[in-house]
Amino acid sequence: MSAVLPTDSIKPFKAAVMQQAVPGFDKHAATAATIGALRQLVLESGVELVVLQELHATAYFCQQENPDYFDLAEPLDGPTYQAYAAFAAEYDTVIVMSQFERRAPGLYHNTAQVIDGKRGRAGIFRKMHIPDDPGYYEKFYFTPGDLRPGLSGFEPIDTRLGRLGVLVCWDQWYPEAARLMALAGADLLVYPTAIGWTPTEAPDEKARQLAAWQTIQRAHAIANGLPVLVANRLGHEADPAGGEGLLFWGHSFIAGPQGELLASAPADVPGFYTATIDLARTEKVRRMWPYFRDRRVDAYAGLTQRWLMPDIPNKS
Amino acid sequence: MSAVLPTDSIKPFKAAVMQQAVPGFDKHAATAATIGALRQLVLESGVELVVLQELHATAYFCQQENPDYFDLAEPLDGPTYQAYAAFAAEYDTVIVMSQFERRAPGLYHNTAQVIDGKRGRAGIFRKMHIPDDPGYYEKFYFTPGDLRPGLSGFEPIDTRLGRLGVLVCWDQWYPEAARLMALAGADLLVYPTAIGWTPTEAPDEKARQLAAWQTIQRAHAIANGLPVLVANRLGHEADPAGGEGLLFWGHSFIAGPQGELLASAPADVPGFYTATIDLARTEKVRRMWPYFRDRRVDAYAGLTQRWLMPDIPNKS
Repeated sequence: MSAVLPTDSIKPFKAAVMQQAVPGFDKHAATAATIGALRQLVLESGVELVVLQELHATAYFCQQENPDYFDLAEPLDGPTYQAYAAFAAEYDTVIVMSQFERRAPGLYHNTAQVIDGKRGRAGIFRKMHIPDDPGYYEKFYFTPGDLRPGLSGFEPIDTRLGRLGVLVCWDQWYPEAARLMALAGADLLVYPTAIGWTPTEAPDEKARQLAAWQTIQRAHAIANGLPVLVANRLGHEADPAGGEGLLFWGHSFIAGPQGELLASAPADVPGFYTATIDLARTEKVRRMWPYFRDRRVDAYAGLTQRWLMPDIPNKS
Repeated sequence: MSAVLPTDSIKPFKAAVMQQAVPGFDKHAATAATIGALRQLVLESGVELVVLQELHATAYFCQQENPDYFDLAEPLDGPTYQAYAAFAAEYDTVIVMSQFERRAPGLYHNTAQVIDGKRGRAGIFRKMHIPDDPGYYEKFYFTPGDLRPGLSGFEPIDTRLGRLGVLVCWDQWYPEAARLMALAGADLLVYPTAIGWTPTEAPDEKARQLAAWQTIQRAHAIANGLPVLVANRLGHEADPAGGEGLLFWGHSFIAGPQGELLASAPADVPGFYTATIDLARTEKVRRMWPYFRDRRVDAYAGLTQRWLMPDIPNKS
């Protein structure tokens, strides 16, 4: 069978995921430091796609509900975006950045922006699933991403390297989010993340949490037959309220379309972790394990419900 | 906080997953052997829930499309069911069995039946997602499970030990199936399975396939905060058409609600593998990682579609 394959025109490229400690609140300094490291990375390794970690311009401020922290937010065209857009244009790099977005007074989001090198902004994704648990008070800060006219909420973003299914942190626990991105044609999934342990958590519980986090994201690669890139922060950040703070667990990774690890960082070593992404492998993997062929779309309506057990009906 | 918890009445129980070689076609002999092993298991270990592997009464006959193999099918009340029902009643054991079901002339299913000890049949599940790839010609034999009146297709089955979300083999690759069972109140997920490698497959490809299979099912436990039990066959079975046959990869396992392994079999050792299931842990895990709270049911409608990329419209 020597016909021209639909994947013949796909060229592998090098991608990197960021893993840095960012314990402070000086956005300008953190952005300058990251861009300095990015410049070295791009010049030395030829990386074409870079995924930055969640809220990379500052410490993870959601350990406390503090209205003053809304001052950290920027509009989509704010100075942090401008700095990365300038870098991306200079080196024609595709960059997935993450920011605290001020959309309107009293309306803030946790937003990823995709910059397609010289072509500028390719699109944005506003975190859809917002967590809220002790130390991660995100529902105070972030309005969940909405379904804008013509956009489903889970909308991949086209770049010169492929169609990016960008999701953010808590979204990573939802197979629905990964599937919707894949159905909408995503070539790969990208997760900027900020997740860690309570420092005094028991070692076996720490191990289970980390393994669960890696496992479920590798499973998104497997279920959908596409690569997954995950960038997580690392290091301890103090709790402004005097608690024990959070120890971000690093372990950024890149997995291929069978969930196999292509790059994998340890818990405590900062850096950019790189792998070569070959999107032509998706075609091969999906031919062998054709999950999309057999989905029972006639039987999935319940997925749009909160719960399927009998409930108390209202009186009519 | 000393209130009575909703989980206070839940008692842990011991569960087992079967892993046997069944290369022949003598259903009576295979069933007698399995029941003999089950008797020993129940008497010695006090196991209360047993998950048998997929199509455990015979060799995996789907390596070839052969109309004669329909003779292996039985109605739901056939002799294989009767044998397990008698055993289950005698020892008051909950058994998940798997069979080739003859529902009507020309209408056959791959069906799991749940026997709740002395209380008899608790319910059935007909495999919803049917594979078809070289060596696994299941679409020839098995009609996909249907949505019967009042039943969604993904309906858990109540037993004295809990509400079982029974799914079969290829279903295990679909996060949708696991989620629908969880939303319908399943306390645990159960997968009778028959999966293996082509014997001459490259070692690295074998490793990726096995890891993917474990990873995605552990991810169902994680995404839904419940235990997962997987029973797989092992050993080589010849290809009647003269090919190299299939080497079933064993590795049956039981995982807890964080995806942690509670029991894990190797590739080549037959037996029943056991673990203690504590369903009270589900409440604790789901409080810590409350995924059900934050599902974006307003944005999941696309999951009922085959594909979400623009298609060619018909002319009106």
